[in-house]
Amino acid sequence: MASRFKQTFSDLGLGTKASAGSARALNKDGSFNVRKLNVPFLERINFFHSLVSMSWGNFLLLILAGYFIVNLFFASIYMLVGVEHLTGVEAGSSFDAFMEAFFFSSQTITTLGYGRVAPIGTLANIVAASESMMGLLGFALATGLLYGRFSKPNAKIKYTHHAVVAPYQDMNGFMFRVLNPQSNQLLEVEVTVSLSVKRKNSELRDYFLLELERSKVVFMPLMWTIVHPIDANSPMYGMDEKTLLELEGEFIVTMKAYDESFSQTVYSRSSYLASEVKWGEKFAYVYQQDPEGISVDVRRMDQTEPATLNTRARS
Amino acid sequence: MASRFKQTFSDLGLGTKASAGSARALNKDGSFNVRKLNVPFLERINFFHSLVSMSWGNFLLLILAGYFIVNLFFASIYMLVGVEHLTGVEAGSSFDAFMEAFFFSSQTITTLGYGRVAPIGTLANIVAASESMMGLLGFALATGLLYGRFSKPNAKIKYTHHAVVAPYQDMNGFMFRVLNPQSNQLLEVEVTVSLSVKRKNSELRDYFLLELERSKVVFMPLMWTIVHPIDANSPMYGMDEKTLLELEGEFIVTMKAYDESFSQTVYSRSSYLASEVKWGEKFAYVYQQDPEGISVDVRRMDQTEPATLNTRARS
Amino acid sequence: MASRFKQTFSDLGLGTKASAGSARALNKDGSFNVRKLNVPFLERINFFHSLVSMSWGNFLLLILAGYFIVNLFFASIYMLVGVEHLTGVEAGSSFDAFMEAFFFSSQTITTLGYGRVAPIGTLANIVAASESMMGLLGFALATGLLYGRFSKPNAKIKYTHHAVVAPYQDMNGFMFRVLNPQSNQLLEVEVTVSLSVKRKNSELRDYFLLELERSKVVFMPLMWTIVHPIDANSPMYGMDEKTLLELEGEFIVTMKAYDESFSQTVYSRSSYLASEVKWGEKFAYVYQQDPEGISVDVRRMDQTEPATLNTRARS
Amino acid sequence: MASRFKQTFSDLGLGTKASAGSARALNKDGSFNVRKLNVPFLERINFFHSLVSMSWGNFLLLILAGYFIVNLFFASIYMLVGVEHLTGVEAGSSFDAFMEAFFFSSQTITTLGYGRVAPIGTLANIVAASESMMGLLGFALATGLLYGRFSKPNAKIKYTHHAVVAPYQDMNGFMFRVLNPQSNQLLEVEVTVSLSVKRKNSELRDYFLLELERSKVVFMPLMWTIVHPIDANSPMYGMDEKTLLELEGEFIVTMKAYDESFSQTVYSRSSYLASEVKWGEKFAYVYQQDPEGISVDVRRMDQTEPATLNTRARS
Repeated sequence: MASRFKQTFSDLGLGTKASAGSARALNKDGSFNVRKLNVPFLERINFFHSLVSMSWGNFLLLILAGYFIVNLFFASIYMLVGVEHLTGVEAGSSFDAFMEAFFFSSQTITTLGYGRVAPIGTLANIVAASESMMGLLGFALATGLLYGRFSKPNAKIKYTHHAVVAPYQDMNGFMFRVLNPQSNQLLEVEVTVSLSVKRKNSELRDYFLLELERSKVVFMPLMWTIVHPIDANSPMYGMDEKTLLELEGEFIVTMKAYDESFSQTVYSRSSYLASEVKWGEKFAYVYQQDPEGISVDVRRMDQTEPATLNTRARS
Repeated sequence: MASRFKQTFSDLGLGTKASAGSARALNKDGSFNVRKLNVPFLERINFFHSLVSMSWGNFLLLILAGYFIVNLFFASIYMLVGVEHLTGVEAGSSFDAFMEAFFFSSQTITTLGYGRVAPIGTLANIVAASESMMGLLGFALATGLLYGRFSKPNAKIKYTHHAVVAPYQDMNGFMFRVLNPQSNQLLEVEVTVSLSVKRKNSELRDYFLLELERSKVVFMPLMWTIVHPIDANSPMYGMDEKTLLELEGEFIVTMKAYDESFSQTVYSRSSYLASEVKWGEKFAYVYQQDPEGISVDVRRMDQTEPATLNTRARS
Repeated sequence: MASRFKQTFSDLGLGTKASAGSARALNKDGSFNVRKLNVPFLERINFFHSLVSMSWGNFLLLILAGYFIVNLFFASIYMLVGVEHLTGVEAGSSFDAFMEAFFFSSQTITTLGYGRVAPIGTLANIVAASESMMGLLGFALATGLLYGRFSKPNAKIKYTHHAVVAPYQDMNGFMFRVLNPQSNQLLEVEVTVSLSVKRKNSELRDYFLLELERSKVVFMPLMWTIVHPIDANSPMYGMDEKTLLELEGEFIVTMKAYDESFSQTVYSRSSYLASEVKWGEKFAYVYQQDPEGISVDVRRMDQTEPATLNTRARS
Repeated sequence: MASRFKQTFSDLGLGTKASAGSARALNKDGSFNVRKLNVPFLERINFFHSLVSMSWGNFLLLILAGYFIVNLFFASIYMLVGVEHLTGVEAGSSFDAFMEAFFFSSQTITTLGYGRVAPIGTLANIVAASESMMGLLGFALATGLLYGRFSKPNAKIKYTHHAVVAPYQDMNGFMFRVLNPQSNQLLEVEVTVSLSVKRKNSELRDYFLLELERSKVVFMPLMWTIVHPIDANSPMYGMDEKTLLELEGEFIVTMKAYDESFSQTVYSRSSYLASEVKWGEKFAYVYQQDPEGISVDVRRMDQTEPATLNTRARS
């Protein structure tokens, strides 16, 4: 939809009011530096999101704990029903009996069913039949989540630690490099870069979408240098390092690509603060030609070397 | 496809004829207030849709009932074959025998197989072998649906209860706020707002697409105020509260976003009736700046305060 | 990509050479009336596609047959190893022994494992351990396909049996109606209609994309009448029923929508031959207004009534 | 985003610096001829990608080996705990005991659980309970990957071995043919063709996007001839076979389509070196008309016949 009200800045959903003071709005890892307060629990909670985004350690611990607790619960029920309704129980004490019930429960919930211990009588059988069904459903959720986490696309796009302002054609350009360190192919890679600066003598912030030399590539088998040429139309035109620092500039990068292994669209975000931009440096040349083809030295990704800026950009 | 016949209103698929009288066309929760009569059963039925969209309570009840009925069915078959073809059955009465057959069936369909009771002889074995295969297939459907429901993206976008007409720049604007109460990120959020009004002295309805200050944001970490500026091109230009009520106006909102947790596109719909629009009110400022960043007080989302409208809009 | 070579007709991938003579190119159900000859078997075969698109009857039969054959195979192996390596076998004859081996195999492959019969000794145990692992993998494929088939989106869009040429504004229009008979919502519904006609005195065919009154709707809760206005730019301008029949005209319809239940994009295709177009008829009005909202009578979807065509279209 | 800096060539993500010397940048099978050196292991590794893209043989071998090793591991633990804690073990030697433990482990990890051998006592039961849970989780990953690999869309688009430069209208055209050998439908098929040539007296390469007669088709039931008309705007204008060979030209083809069976977008890539282009040849006519419809002889896909080029293209 074309809008008569479209302005020269893109709204990142942060709003002109969303000044984070001196803190960054977007963290290096792509998470936001904002909080929503007083959201009612039932609206806020999203079990799937929580279970998919927690760490692997916590996830496995949660499954283990769940398995343990559910078995404790059913063992107690079998004790209530009476272990005499389980055949083959060998227990001298009631602790031994509880342990037998506990392990019988674990054999039931996993549908293992050795049968050394087995339920006899209606009540014990009802509990066992319910537990095995619950086990099938419960493990389906657990293993579905396990596989869902494992097969979740995560574009681990690597950004250079610093951006640079380097000479570009007869002017200068704001540049950084990105790389897909993995061997899976990213297709139709799109990038947008926005610059957020504080208004002078105000707490409000403005957002400017930066025009790029190239904002889309068909594939990205190597490193990609993203360039914003600082020409007369650029919001960075005439700015120098000191000004950008004073304005608390923050460059917000969003990338979007199709991941061929996962057959899904993936997103990546990062940001550069004014203090993470090196002025008058350019990125080192990292390509190498072998008889077998081209190679790129990823170790030298962040390497820069001094370069004299064209003066026109500051005129 | 550009069309020479494109008109200033967007068709929402409701049609100019689709006047619901005084009832709303789109309910608050995004469901439609329309019915299709006399659709043949076989064309209308969609098992997957029904099983995925029913309530969790009904879904779990259905699985439980299915499990019970299938076990009843197979228990009857084992009784027909004869319990003497099951080893280890301990039954004084034929009711006891049926119970043993029932629980043997449950141990077979879940592939639990304790073995205290086990089939012996060709016929009983054929039934058991079939039942265990059916169990694997049946539980695959049940657990697939369970996980499918659990992992189904549901954008729980929260809309303000009321929309407002508030001053905007040197004119007025139709505004409402939306928020993602959950912690998962929504990306590339798009919104469209249409106004449906009754034609004067007619039962027909016209649909107008409202131009928005901004119809797309890259991400939506905070609250987003959606604004339709009421300028001379707006169908609301010159309208006041009374007129909108007389025309039985209904604002239809559709949102679309990419949900990063679910790696899928999600949709959300809602509507505002003329009676749900507050004229001469503006939304309260809910942002707060902390040392750690920005926060927004969601409890105050719906809060409005009086604001004097610019008169130009009524001129 | 804008092309300097773009022409007024859209290529449907059928090509100008692809004249099917008097046969239709696209069948009513959306399948194509074309064949590819001499494709090497290994290039042609796509197990997943075959297993997903075969009928439910064949699919279930295939699973059953596979289950039977694999059990026959493993029963033979257990016989070779010797039934004396299975405990608990009760067999008077070697046929009985084979049956015991067969059912033991079925209990192993489903991981049922009653244990009345169990392997003893290295060789029998190796076979059983292999079989149970194969069973887990094999049933994972079978149940994955089962659920994949069940959850596969299939837009059962219903088209009117006939299209009509009816008066439209001050000219005429080519029209047909579509409906989603199910209760799941289709969003962002797009339609394209192409007309394929034979060149006069030639076997070649031309394809014309028809401009539509509206080619996209946001949602489609009711019936949608798709209209191609026959104005001076239309390839149907000046055509009458007889000409269209002589040119062996075929209208090719493709629809695309987002299915909210399945969270996926779905496609639908159909076609109207010249003989399936009623000239001088219009579709009956099928909307009804109740206190609760709008309803539409699907039974009367195909109903048409005579309507006098505007003459300008034939001038 | 429209860019003021957009140039006549599309960046394929290979960069002007990415000259592979005489080697091709893109292999016939769509893989890239580039390498990334010194990527830290933890950033490079993507288990899911590796497991999904390895060959079927290696994948099944890996599962088998994993199954074997895990059972070895648990058998050792049961030996440490002591086989006297497993009932029913029949072992003359400690090797026999280990084998019993090994097969007991296999019956536990697959949740088979015959029960001839069963754990007794707390320690053995803890190991068995843990193993069965691990088995459920581990097999969920293995079978999830198995099905994921099986259901992964792979557009096996077949390209002609050679491209041709053939007469096209009153000029010439660069042409090749593609075909979907399988019976599943590809929808909304898009193609882009780029020409990469070496700069004269330089190691750098330029990339030109070639304009196509048609870059998108709605469906592709038959063979599709992709044509780049060599008019005055073409980078190939005035080029002859010798020049293209000297410039080490490489045509890079990317295709994108929606696969109806898999309900997913699929991609395909290929390339033609200058030496794989036949000048002054045209593709043979392979369509056939039967009473039942059209058929195409795929065996003759690559067949070409001499054709006199129009001279204008070399003028």
